[in-house]
Amino acid sequence: MTTNVVDVSRSPHASLRPVPIENVKLEGGFMGRWLTVVAEKAIPHQYKMLEEHERLDRFRWASGKISRKPKTSFYPFDDTDVYKWLEACGYVLAWPDLEESKSRELRGLVKQVIDEVVAAQDSDGYLFTEHKGREGERWKSLTFDHELYCAGHLIQAAIALHRSINEEKLFNAARGFADLIANTFNPEGIRGVPGHPEVEMALVELYRETNDRAYLNTAAFFINERGKGLLEVKGSPTFLESAEYMMYHVLGGLEYFIDHKPIRELTEIVGHAVRSLYLNCGVTDLYMETGEQALLDVMNRLWEDFVYRKMYVTGAAGSRYISESFGDRYELPNERAYAETCAAIANFMWNWRMFLATGNAKHVDVMESTFYNAILSGISLDGTKYFYMNPLAVFKEYTREPWFQCACCPPNVARLIASLPGYFYCVVDDGIYVNLYNSSRARVSYREMELEIVQETKYPWNGEVKLTLHMPEPLSFKIYLRIPGWCDGAVVNVDGRIFKPKSSTYLPIMRKWKDGDVIKVAFPMPVKLTASHPYVRNNISQVAIKRGPIVYCLEEIDNPVDIRNIVLSDDIRFTAKYRGDLLDGVVVVAGNAYYVKEWGENYPLYFPIEKLQVRARRIRLTAIPYYAWANRKPGKMMIWIPLAEWLKIRRKPSKRSKQRRK
Amino acid sequence: MTTNVVDVSRSPHASLRPVPIENVKLEGGFMGRWLTVVAEKAIPHQYKMLEEHERLDRFRWASGKISRKPKTSFYPFDDTDVYKWLEACGYVLAWPDLEESKSRELRGLVKQVIDEVVAAQDSDGYLFTEHKGREGERWKSLTFDHELYCAGHLIQAAIALHRSINEEKLFNAARGFADLIANTFNPEGIRGVPGHPEVEMALVELYRETNDRAYLNTAAFFINERGKGLLEVKGSPTFLESAEYMMYHVLGGLEYFIDHKPIRELTEIVGHAVRSLYLNCGVTDLYMETGEQALLDVMNRLWEDFVYRKMYVTGAAGSRYISESFGDRYELPNERAYAETCAAIANFMWNWRMFLATGNAKHVDVMESTFYNAILSGISLDGTKYFYMNPLAVFKEYTREPWFQCACCPPNVARLIASLPGYFYCVVDDGIYVNLYNSSRARVSYREMELEIVQETKYPWNGEVKLTLHMPEPLSFKIYLRIPGWCDGAVVNVDGRIFKPKSSTYLPIMRKWKDGDVIKVAFPMPVKLTASHPYVRNNISQVAIKRGPIVYCLEEIDNPVDIRNIVLSDDIRFTAKYRGDLLDGVVVVAGNAYYVKEWGENYPLYFPIEKLQVRARRIRLTAIPYYAWANRKPGKMMIWIPLAEWLKIRRKPSKRSKQRRK
Repeated sequence: MTTNVVDVSRSPHASLRPVPIENVKLEGGFMGRWLTVVAEKAIPHQYKMLEEHERLDRFRWASGKISRKPKTSFYPFDDTDVYKWLEACGYVLAWPDLEESKSRELRGLVKQVIDEVVAAQDSDGYLFTEHKGREGERWKSLTFDHELYCAGHLIQAAIALHRSINEEKLFNAARGFADLIANTFNPEGIRGVPGHPEVEMALVELYRETNDRAYLNTAAFFINERGKGLLEVKGSPTFLESAEYMMYHVLGGLEYFIDHKPIRELTEIVGHAVRSLYLNCGVTDLYMETGEQALLDVMNRLWEDFVYRKMYVTGAAGSRYISESFGDRYELPNERAYAETCAAIANFMWNWRMFLATGNAKHVDVMESTFYNAILSGISLDGTKYFYMNPLAVFKEYTREPWFQCACCPPNVARLIASLPGYFYCVVDDGIYVNLYNSSRARVSYREMELEIVQETKYPWNGEVKLTLHMPEPLSFKIYLRIPGWCDGAVVNVDGRIFKPKSSTYLPIMRKWKDGDVIKVAFPMPVKLTASHPYVRNNISQVAIKRGPIVYCLEEIDNPVDIRNIVLSDDIRFTAKYRGDLLDGVVVVAGNAYYVKEWGENYPLYFPIEKLQVRARRIRLTAIPYYAWANRKPGKMMIWIPLAEWLKIRRKPSKRSKQRRK
Repeated sequence: MTTNVVDVSRSPHASLRPVPIENVKLEGGFMGRWLTVVAEKAIPHQYKMLEEHERLDRFRWASGKISRKPKTSFYPFDDTDVYKWLEACGYVLAWPDLEESKSRELRGLVKQVIDEVVAAQDSDGYLFTEHKGREGERWKSLTFDHELYCAGHLIQAAIALHRSINEEKLFNAARGFADLIANTFNPEGIRGVPGHPEVEMALVELYRETNDRAYLNTAAFFINERGKGLLEVKGSPTFLESAEYMMYHVLGGLEYFIDHKPIRELTEIVGHAVRSLYLNCGVTDLYMETGEQALLDVMNRLWEDFVYRKMYVTGAAGSRYISESFGDRYELPNERAYAETCAAIANFMWNWRMFLATGNAKHVDVMESTFYNAILSGISLDGTKYFYMNPLAVFKEYTREPWFQCACCPPNVARLIASLPGYFYCVVDDGIYVNLYNSSRARVSYREMELEIVQETKYPWNGEVKLTLHMPEPLSFKIYLRIPGWCDGAVVNVDGRIFKPKSSTYLPIMRKWKDGDVIKVAFPMPVKLTASHPYVRNNISQVAIKRGPIVYCLEEIDNPVDIRNIVLSDDIRFTAKYRGDLLDGVVVVAGNAYYVKEWGENYPLYFPIEKLQVRARRIRLTAIPYYAWANRKPGKMMIWIPLAEWLKIRRKPSKRSKQRRK
């Protein structure tokens, strides 16, 4: 079996072919710890939640096993909590080092869940518990009903399990539903598009898995029909008359659904962030099959609009509450960031596809930054508590929850982390791409040969990586080494030959490689201050602390003052120190900053600028990785720290210097 | 007749009694121009809109005069557009200098409209067109139906016209409705509160007008019952099942309605801004009748929370879209400011009541700032186009509209401006308060004597005010002269006696005043830079330009560059110049600033702080009063301008200095 989330091995317009999950064994380290957390904590915990919150009961009710309709589960997309959990299990079962007993146990549980799911399927393939007993409503309310969205996640789960353990039952069920969809939505059938994109990428993947072009055609149909306003909710605009009509307008109308304009004409990334980014996954997948340049062009336009104007420094997406959507350009509020965990995951998923399509290192930069910051912030260190929103500053109480009424994020973060080994390596005709860094041992099939690549590193805490090659006989090819976008001054040493590659590139190392060859990489990891575009008005004169791919934050527990009173000079000197005892092991950053005592809740809201002359005392500032916040005592948190330069600081002597003077 | 918006002449716990509208003739100047605009442009324009947008047809339909139910008017509160327009007419008809022909014409139109309104009333007094033909729905859905809100505006309109022209028909209709409400809502009747507060202050005013305590008791009942969750919308939480339930949750539940906590226990100003501030008006009115200290205490707490933590520099209120509500403390986004015109008006109205209750100058400071900035920004210079939202920065197209589907703001701003003369003077036992400044001639009854106070000034463009007293015989009393909160270094000269009063106070001038006495006031009006509390993270290192009570902004038409690239030094020197040809006469502020050319839409979103070293060229910056923006060609606008200090600017030589060097 070869489990790839996106299998482009036969896609004519893909640039690279990923090495499957089975072939990459993470050996501890940062990502290895997260795999363990997902397998041992998150997946069992989420299964419990699926039972407690009646997600499985939906299927039992739909198949007639229980007669009481679930009450606590009521969203039409609740079926997907089960599907995403199954997909996560699919990736876990592909891990090469999963213990046999654990694998057996998980397979048993997966089989049970699949039985529950498949029992709820109608004889014609339809599978959507929300419409059970209301068959007349099929495909009637595509704008909000999420039938096709659920189908998409069902298909993705089925493919994952089909690839990893050759599971057939769910796979056939998913194909049955996909066949029904393909026979329903086409130029001769219903003209309609999914209210929530997702099924597009799933159908392309099902085409890749089955070679049945009907699925590809259906995905193309959905993408081509989108933007014609088919999702518009019409109705007499009477106050409170129709919930659907009102909700449609409150959310932002067609733009929310990215149905306001044909996809090939889009110039800005807009609408509900997850819808938008999932749609882009499907479009990029379609491009890799058809090679239609217009699709790649629009993806590049939207990517630039996103990454240059609408993405948080963490990689998070979505600036607006209620509509969970992108905002205007440079609208990136920190406290009111929506930054849904699912949107960060969707960002990662889209950039993976863009990378496979183009081979451009900038896409892996976004994936990496999003993973270490925006995605991991969505899950507690122990894997059992989650954030739905991931604000970049919190000045009131905000804590992780074990589950949500709308629980899209927890199983989504589980499936993303579980699939991590699948992003490490890619193969191209003339060589092998090294994308991510973590201690690991990978088997890479390249030109009839099976190589082993061993990584030894403490990445992301330390930028030194040692790669060792094992191969049966020497072979000339290129190793493409990813030089992260955050890294200046990388040095690569291959047997005494020194490379000093530019950041955000792949360094191609051509050589006749032989068994035992070593690549020594040093990515310098100084603590850096990052500013943001002055058009992001709420970040003016503020900086974020970064080290390597990690974005840091100040958390109240480490800085027991009102952290809003902290300002720092742009010539601050930081120390960075690994602390194994803290937050499951993190590098902590510290430095000297100022604390302005006079500011507080009774300080005037507006005042003449003469008051910018403030007294401040020196304090020691401690910053931790943003992803690890909210794992201890609740308190304030912020990423963007004001510079001291706009103030006129009169330094208050520290206690020590006072004593000295005495 | 004596027309006061708030008539506290017999209220035992009011500190001052306002001089009525009839007695204050504004003689041109800044405010006089606005009165003319309202009478000659806004009121006729709005009457046309009331017809075009079927607001009057609602009443015609409800009274059976037309059989077609209006379609374009569909909000349950649309009746109030007519009521607020009538109230505005009531104040206009009180102006001492309204020409007889104009008065006759307006009275005729008012009579017609009143006939239409009253014809729609049920025999038991009920008057709410939304429920016509659906009598069973009366009082059934207080959360959203706005019956009591409409009643409140009906009562206020009726009182205004009763006071100004002794109108009886609408007044009796309003009393009839008020009697029905009083008989319906009481400890023995229905326990319920209005979903949208408004009727509370109207009922207290009706008590003041009629001396019938039933109205006061009903207002007290509504205030006392509030906060017990009576407005909660219950329902099974099924996705899209109930529009009402969904809307209730999207908006924020009980807190949106300020029904989450008993009023006397409130500590923070929260919820829908207009609801919240109208409610405070009613509570303050009730306090002035009952003297209950707990009510004044809570009003003071909410005032401090508002003015110290949640009010825009313009006086605007409401930080959040969709829920049109207050945000968290210090949540004051500029581009995404909701800042509804009605909320600014409500702010003015509440502070007027707080001033009448306490005599504290700080309340008039807020009124003044809100009027000159947040309220006037809601209406075009010609009176016929309006803003609903008043953002403090606009970087995309945003233009005024002649009317709105939800048209609460246009007639609200008309009634507020029309009532302006009524806020100029107050009388207390030992003297006369001078609150506002504009060229004017006022008759003030004080201790059996009628004085005339003449103001000559170009306020707010110039801080010099000459007050001349005319009186039949000398009398000893105090003149309390308001020293605005924005003013440092005020100098008051009475016959050679010099006062140097503190800002935000009333300077009491005790004297045996005699005919012809002159008070010369000089309020220095330098251009000032204002900063905001660093907890308002989106204003960090940014300043607003103020001069006198006026908040300035940069508008693209005067600064034909991307205004987001402008930064200024905190030692900038401004010039201020009156330009009669521009924007109906404004003082324009200019000064030297920097323009950073390299920033643009393709500049990186995040970058190392070394890039804060920028090249900039000197430019001349031109600022206009914020209220006057969007009256010319559409373009970008902003109030908060970044300081240059956080950047390291390498000055690009100006063209002139280059030439000099050659």
